[in-house]
Amino acid sequence: MLGAIEAGGTKFVCAVGDETGKILDRVQIPTTVPSETIPQVLAFFRKYQIKAIGIGSFGPIDVNLGSATYGNITSTPKPGWKDYPFVHEIKNALSVPVGFNTDVNAAALGEAIFGAAKGLDSCLYITVGTGIGAGAVIQGNLLQGLSHPEMGHILVRRHPEDRYVGKCPYHSDCLEGLAAGPAIEERWGTKGVDLVGRDEVWDMEGYYIAQALMQYILILSPKKIILGGGVMNQQQVFPYVYTYLQEFLNDYVSLPELSKYIVSPGLANHSGIIGSLLLAERALKEV
Amino acid sequence: MLGAIEAGGTKFVCAVGDETGKILDRVQIPTTVPSETIPQVLAFFRKYQIKAIGIGSFGPIDVNLGSATYGNITSTPKPGWKDYPFVHEIKNALSVPVGFNTDVNAAALGEAIFGAAKGLDSCLYITVGTGIGAGAVIQGNLLQGLSHPEMGHILVRRHPEDRYVGKCPYHSDCLEGLAAGPAIEERWGTKGVDLVGRDEVWDMEGYYIAQALMQYILILSPKKIILGGGVMNQQQVFPYVYTYLQEFLNDYVSLPELSKYIVSPGLANHSGIIGSLLLAERALKEV
Repeated sequence: MLGAIEAGGTKFVCAVGDETGKILDRVQIPTTVPSETIPQVLAFFRKYQIKAIGIGSFGPIDVNLGSATYGNITSTPKPGWKDYPFVHEIKNALSVPVGFNTDVNAAALGEAIFGAAKGLDSCLYITVGTGIGAGAVIQGNLLQGLSHPEMGHILVRRHPEDRYVGKCPYHSDCLEGLAAGPAIEERWGTKGVDLVGRDEVWDMEGYYIAQALMQYILILSPKKIILGGGVMNQQQVFPYVYTYLQEFLNDYVSLPELSKYIVSPGLANHSGIIGSLLLAERALKEV
Repeated sequence: MLGAIEAGGTKFVCAVGDETGKILDRVQIPTTVPSETIPQVLAFFRKYQIKAIGIGSFGPIDVNLGSATYGNITSTPKPGWKDYPFVHEIKNALSVPVGFNTDVNAAALGEAIFGAAKGLDSCLYITVGTGIGAGAVIQGNLLQGLSHPEMGHILVRRHPEDRYVGKCPYHSDCLEGLAAGPAIEERWGTKGVDLVGRDEVWDMEGYYIAQALMQYILILSPKKIILGGGVMNQQQVFPYVYTYLQEFLNDYVSLPELSKYIVSPGLANHSGIIGSLLLAERALKEV
């Protein structure tokens, strides 16, 4: 039996399951401060005999195995979590191998093995929600270099009719600053779920997401693109994404039919937790 | 002994050497049409007993091993080269294993093994010249997915003072359309080499290159970035690139000191041909 933690900014999902992606038990724990959240996490896993645990975590995190701070959450503004030695604490308490990556890289792995990109050695998973993040599987490996990707903060050209200043505290009108849920809410004065019939909202959203996809495609050339997260539950965005992407790329690269290439998650909202189970499996193999 | 071809739009560089990157003989052949260029290429290699050959080619090319058109140059406007079965012709004539990739991926490999990124498992090589292209080594592998990257065509925000329309036939004012050599020449009315003292030229160039690097860093997180090609021989661009990149990223990700992170090629203008020798070595190992 394997353990998995999908560590998010508002809640931790903990699960036990196996390497086929089957979940046997799960629990949700609010993300407050480590001294409150982590003991509940440990109590859940102590009910089971797990052989390894995988963590898909909110970031930024230190994923460099050679680093002295490997396994830490690094510069988050979330009280109590800055410099939290996540891997160290879990490994110490449960004495099992721990796999550790970003929540979005875990989700990309889940989708590549069991989801919409099953059978492919490459996919890009993007979540558009409270923030925008992306993870990628490239030639079978989780994308990583100097650090993990931070794809949500790429620059985009502003929509000609967009007067909204942007919400990113670092870059103001980067992709996340213009297209994540809080930006939609602030620009239009109400949450995205209450804007369903407003075509101009989703046209603009599609404009920004298509621009981002163009950059990702030209740089990474993923074999499948998966768009998840709360905002992407608004399925009316997809046609705008396809139309703008076609316009922007202008047939420069040949792609599969866009409605089959750019899709919703195959694992619904379980990509991250199932991917974290797979991180556990990989950690076990590396021992 | 190994063979290497760096196939460019104006000339083919052919060389023989070994897996340490040592070049024993080399020749340059003008790129005209295949029926003229290729026989000269073959004549050069027939003087030697080579065990394998590596090709770093101008593109776009088909690099998917499973494809029926693997090894072909695909949609180039260059007369005679569209759909040219490059790997097939060379393998047929010389009866050795053939490694095949883009010129820029070959250069990235050369730099990762023997150049500015020696000892690292990750680097990005960008050439800014007649066009803009980039190749990457990620976790030791040459970056590839659905196809090879086409990073030169990413979208950038226009410099506020740039009135030039852009030169890319597909995207008008994408990165290549605004920042490659021909765009510089058309915008300012004379070639870059004659604009050395004109600060506004290199400020604008740095603005565009820094934007591109921001996107590449956030998406790929390379461990080293190498800027080559004719335009980058204008070393006065580098300070502008560092200044704008710092401004755009705004400390969102932590990077090494920029002057050590973003550098000129370690192999001068031999990155591509040495990388092609390494493609030959890899092809030999895969037999």
